Amino acid sequence: MSRLPPLSGIPADLVSAADYQRHARQRLDENALVYLEGGAADELTCQANLQVWQEWALLPRMLRDLRGGHTRCRLLGQELQHPILLAPVAYQQLFHAEGELATAMAAGVMGGAAVLSSFSSTSLEAVAEVAQGPLWFQLYWQGDGERTLALAERAAAAGYQALVLTVDAPVSGVRNREQRAGFQLPEGVRAVNVDESPRLPELQSGQSPVFDGLLALAPRWDEVAWLCRHSPLPVLLKGILHPADARQAMQAGAAGVIASNHGGRVLDSQLPAVKMLPAIRQSVGAEALLLVDGGIRRGTDVLKAIALGADAVLIGRPYVHAQATAGALGVAHLLKLLREELEVGMALCGCRELADITPELLVRL
Amino acid sequence: MSRLPPLSGIPADLVSAADYQRHARQRLDENALVYLEGGAADELTCQANLQVWQEWALLPRMLRDLRGGHTRCRLLGQELQHPILLAPVAYQQLFHAEGELATAMAAGVMGGAAVLSSFSSTSLEAVAEVAQGPLWFQLYWQGDGERTLALAERAAAAGYQALVLTVDAPVSGVRNREQRAGFQLPEGVRAVNVDESPRLPELQSGQSPVFDGLLALAPRWDEVAWLCRHSPLPVLLKGILHPADARQAMQAGAAGVIASNHGGRVLDSQLPAVKMLPAIRQSVGAEALLLVDGGIRRGTDVLKAIALGADAVLIGRPYVHAQATAGALGVAHLLKLLREELEVGMALCGCRELADITPELLVRL
Amino acid sequence: MSRLPPLSGIPADLVSAADYQRHARQRLDENALVYLEGGAADELTCQANLQVWQEWALLPRMLRDLRGGHTRCRLLGQELQHPILLAPVAYQQLFHAEGELATAMAAGVMGGAAVLSSFSSTSLEAVAEVAQGPLWFQLYWQGDGERTLALAERAAAAGYQALVLTVDAPVSGVRNREQRAGFQLPEGVRAVNVDESPRLPELQSGQSPVFDGLLALAPRWDEVAWLCRHSPLPVLLKGILHPADARQAMQAGAAGVIASNHGGRVLDSQLPAVKMLPAIRQSVGAEALLLVDGGIRRGTDVLKAIALGADAVLIGRPYVHAQATAGALGVAHLLKLLREELEVGMALCGCRELADITPELLVRL
Amino acid sequence: MSRLPPLSGIPADLVSAADYQRHARQRLDENALVYLEGGAADELTCQANLQVWQEWALLPRMLRDLRGGHTRCRLLGQELQHPILLAPVAYQQLFHAEGELATAMAAGVMGGAAVLSSFSSTSLEAVAEVAQGPLWFQLYWQGDGERTLALAERAAAAGYQALVLTVDAPVSGVRNREQRAGFQLPEGVRAVNVDESPRLPELQSGQSPVFDGLLALAPRWDEVAWLCRHSPLPVLLKGILHPADARQAMQAGAAGVIASNHGGRVLDSQLPAVKMLPAIRQSVGAEALLLVDGGIRRGTDVLKAIALGADAVLIGRPYVHAQATAGALGVAHLLKLLREELEVGMALCGCRELADITPELLVRL
Repeated sequence: MSRLPPLSGIPADLVSAADYQRHARQRLDENALVYLEGGAADELTCQANLQVWQEWALLPRMLRDLRGGHTRCRLLGQELQHPILLAPVAYQQLFHAEGELATAMAAGVMGGAAVLSSFSSTSLEAVAEVAQGPLWFQLYWQGDGERTLALAERAAAAGYQALVLTVDAPVSGVRNREQRAGFQLPEGVRAVNVDESPRLPELQSGQSPVFDGLLALAPRWDEVAWLCRHSPLPVLLKGILHPADARQAMQAGAAGVIASNHGGRVLDSQLPAVKMLPAIRQSVGAEALLLVDGGIRRGTDVLKAIALGADAVLIGRPYVHAQATAGALGVAHLLKLLREELEVGMALCGCRELADITPELLVRL
Repeated sequence: MSRLPPLSGIPADLVSAADYQRHARQRLDENALVYLEGGAADELTCQANLQVWQEWALLPRMLRDLRGGHTRCRLLGQELQHPILLAPVAYQQLFHAEGELATAMAAGVMGGAAVLSSFSSTSLEAVAEVAQGPLWFQLYWQGDGERTLALAERAAAAGYQALVLTVDAPVSGVRNREQRAGFQLPEGVRAVNVDESPRLPELQSGQSPVFDGLLALAPRWDEVAWLCRHSPLPVLLKGILHPADARQAMQAGAAGVIASNHGGRVLDSQLPAVKMLPAIRQSVGAEALLLVDGGIRRGTDVLKAIALGADAVLIGRPYVHAQATAGALGVAHLLKLLREELEVGMALCGCRELADITPELLVRL
Repeated sequence: MSRLPPLSGIPADLVSAADYQRHARQRLDENALVYLEGGAADELTCQANLQVWQEWALLPRMLRDLRGGHTRCRLLGQELQHPILLAPVAYQQLFHAEGELATAMAAGVMGGAAVLSSFSSTSLEAVAEVAQGPLWFQLYWQGDGERTLALAERAAAAGYQALVLTVDAPVSGVRNREQRAGFQLPEGVRAVNVDESPRLPELQSGQSPVFDGLLALAPRWDEVAWLCRHSPLPVLLKGILHPADARQAMQAGAAGVIASNHGGRVLDSQLPAVKMLPAIRQSVGAEALLLVDGGIRRGTDVLKAIALGADAVLIGRPYVHAQATAGALGVAHLLKLLREELEVGMALCGCRELADITPELLVRL
Repeated sequence: MSRLPPLSGIPADLVSAADYQRHARQRLDENALVYLEGGAADELTCQANLQVWQEWALLPRMLRDLRGGHTRCRLLGQELQHPILLAPVAYQQLFHAEGELATAMAAGVMGGAAVLSSFSSTSLEAVAEVAQGPLWFQLYWQGDGERTLALAERAAAAGYQALVLTVDAPVSGVRNREQRAGFQLPEGVRAVNVDESPRLPELQSGQSPVFDGLLALAPRWDEVAWLCRHSPLPVLLKGILHPADARQAMQAGAAGVIASNHGGRVLDSQLPAVKMLPAIRQSVGAEALLLVDGGIRRGTDVLKAIALGADAVLIGRPYVHAQATAGALGVAHLLKLLREELEVGMALCGCRELADITPELLVRL
């Protein structure tokens, strides 16, 4: 089955994230789709991430004075036009020739921020060059502190403004969909910024590839604290779900926490992150920077996430769908749609600004 | 696919609102159907409106003396034969050549009331002329008080008995189904009573079409209070869901409140109005006029709405299905079916009159 | 489509009530099926009746001494081999040529009891003649006490041992499935025991066929008390769901109560009767006779009903499926299956007799 | 339809228990499938066993030091590499020519234990001969203590290390799927270890085949206590769900309890065993040996079972699917998959060993 090429304009029937998913599925080959859409094991967490938003209904407020309202927010000292960040997604040249460049351009044009994956298929410097707005750099622990710090310093030198250390994937997820399909990176697509992977220890007989292999290279709390102390950039920890871990992250010197289950790609039957938001917010206090991702497809989801305690949100697969459909233009358009949905939701819930979005807007179903 | 013409009689298999929906789908073109059946975004609230009624089961009472029972109610000093009003629906000539005339005639013949939309495709005076029962007039805020009052006075002069100010749609809903289908009004169908829309302010760069555009024309509590003071007719506020807003409405001088989420057409993932009824009733007190709409398809739904605190209900899409199927005759027949279902429900729940319908009849499932 | 004739033996694949339903659907014509399977309005209560049993799970007990266990029960002074009665079902000649005769024979052969409908298509005396076990007679109020008592005395004279006064259908249900299909009794099938229906009062203009028509003929508490005093037989009231009504029934002199929603055929969105059983049992006390029907398809359902407070249960549609499939033989076989399922359930829950079946066996899901 | 032969290697698309089920369905004939996949009555408990695991979500913990972690456990004084035992399944030659031999070999190779069914189609001595790890022997009460003890002693002599006395099937389940399909053992497959079934008592007229027949041969608490006292091997009781029964089992001298509903094959609408685990653990105390089975298909299910109180788990149908697909190789591979999933789950939940798996990891949904 031949695949459709990317669009160079936005047709009138592209009016929501779901439409971009539909279009992307006509444009991506099976290999890329399996990687993009799949998750761990039975993908129950992937589904839960999408459905969890329906556990809260909105209780709107009427007739308030909302003139001059806006969606601006300030993260790490930088003002953004809206609280919708682009999450780190690896190997974006799988989805569109411009890959991570398209992402960074679109985020900047729309007044927002993007997080570049350390498995970017484009050099982090090249991405920084085209960006018109703030960029953050996602990284994995590189086996030891020095290697990790070196990568952080390279990102800082290129102009990135924050680090996002992903802590929820010390071992690979059991991604059965990828395994069944035999997913592999096509020629020419690779993680260009982290060429040499840390070397795994040699296992002795009876040792576990998980406990004695991968986990030997995984970071621990004291190492993370070391990184926070030495990093040239503020460090957010991504992949935290337990309120006690969130507090420990702040105590270790993190600049913030991203509540996430990694898009359901690592451990199936995990909780959707948004369900833990209120407890995490309570644990870290009102001032700590707290973001969330997972299953956000509508401006009303953003509204709910903020009502439950988030300062901002990240989207992942949806912007890749838009990128696959129409490159940077698609990503920018999707951001515009989501922001407008957020504005409409705020207006109908009587909120002039993000700070007005409180738990009282929600009814638990 | 050719569409069936309206019926001039009622076939024996038309015995419920669901049957009229089925028939209407065979008679309306795609453009009209998209407008009628669609809602905001993913239409989750549309679906919730329908399903919410199953959250309560009826617990019937036996062997009471019910002779002389009836469904009469008194709203704004006027006696109606039953508590099922026809909600404002715009552009009814989309659905049947007689449009709003059919609606008004049917309501009157059945001893009930209809609410004319300010986006009526028929002149409000012409509708008033054919009506045989009470008519209310729905209006949107016309950008300022004077224009709004002028419209109200025109309705009063034509004989309308109450105003229904819709407050839950200061900005357009994100109606993806309409957008995807490219819905537009066919030639000859337009809002004949409010030809000139209020002019939107010109936006400066960086301003939001929502907050700085539409909301600049939206009413606020003080303006609504002003309207209530100067209106020649009692003013109900439609689109209230929060109990505090309901109380504020009464304090602002409203004659009553219509709990509604606008048929799920404005903000998706809103709560079904009926879920808020008990709290709203408690908030406004036993004497305040309180109506509800959303998803009512059976007389038992009416019974439940009243048990939860409503004085009366409004139906929307169901009577348009009946109108599309058989014009005024269809609408009258549908009202007869619903009233009979209500009577049977009352009889089996041991209720002689609407005042006997109390929360004790319901079991929360 | 030609229909299959009834069977004269039981094939090996008929091993449950569900199998009989499947067979019956191949044997009954559409008219009979619509009447048998249909219910009120959207048939939500019909479905709820079936599904409600899954709200409780069984928590079995092991290794008790169960030798000599049995399913016998004593109702109104008469010992039955099992607590599964055949509910009154009208017009059984619709389903099998032997109609009510088959039902009565099967019940007796299996050591149980049957309740003859007052809309029996066979004379009550003829049914009594073939019966080999206890028969009860179901009746509707005949418009006044004298006519009702006359029918009761006729049943007593024929040997019936109890009366079941159905009180939950003073008005007809809104049976849309029947209406849509144009159901009517075929020639030769009629209610032979109550030829003359009570005459409805003539309605004046504006009067309600429900409140001023049917309900004028419906019984009230004082009339029921009068019947209980004068009846030659004990009177059970069938169709009670509210605990207060159940207590009032006992105070009015009833010999017992049958908790029922009339198979979902009268008022849709009513509660399944079994959900009210514990409250009814508490209301009427441990000694009162309390039966239940609605959706029982398995011996484990019987077990649950008894655990929740019933002394015995009635089945309706399932035995008609069996009758349509294989006449009296089918009905007897179905009773055998259900009784065996009940025995197995009792054995695995550590119950030697019905009195051992207590609420502790159930876990609410 | 011709069936596929077993595989001699593991294709790349076999990456989970679900994949083995899919493969097994292509390889087993209808007769074997009906026996393997079916359960009691409507198979509601079979389904519930599978779905119950989704009632808990995992709440992972990050950045702990997990080096040197492992899945080892010690049961009855014997160390196993992982806590996933192979449950007793009868007549395994139905599924693969090597039947129980394949099972025992695979369990041993993977460092685990298997439980041989007393309805094994292979002699218990032959199985013991090929085993490379601990074997337990499942037995039913043989009608009296002496016969039961004789079987136990034969197992002990052959090297089995524990007895698993199944107490939840004193009467046969109502397995409608088997009945409808006319399941029977093919020639050559039979229970070779218990050739002579205990003789049922002759029933007198009116006696129940359940209460007076099968249950006359079923064991009771005092007999079980006698067996525990005289048995050459520790005795676990399998099929306990009620906490009081679990405590009584320990008081009767049992070496442990296996919470189980027999794969949903005996009494439909029973509770999934895992739902009772916390209460059973509380009842028997922290030191008692407690296992569970039912619906385990993923390493995360094992994790949840242990978090809820189990020391180890058993799997049944899944390893038969693997056996049918690829014999001993398939069973070993499935165990490897499940153990790896467990390791990944432990790693992401911050658990170095099984003792770290506590209820705090779970969130009730």
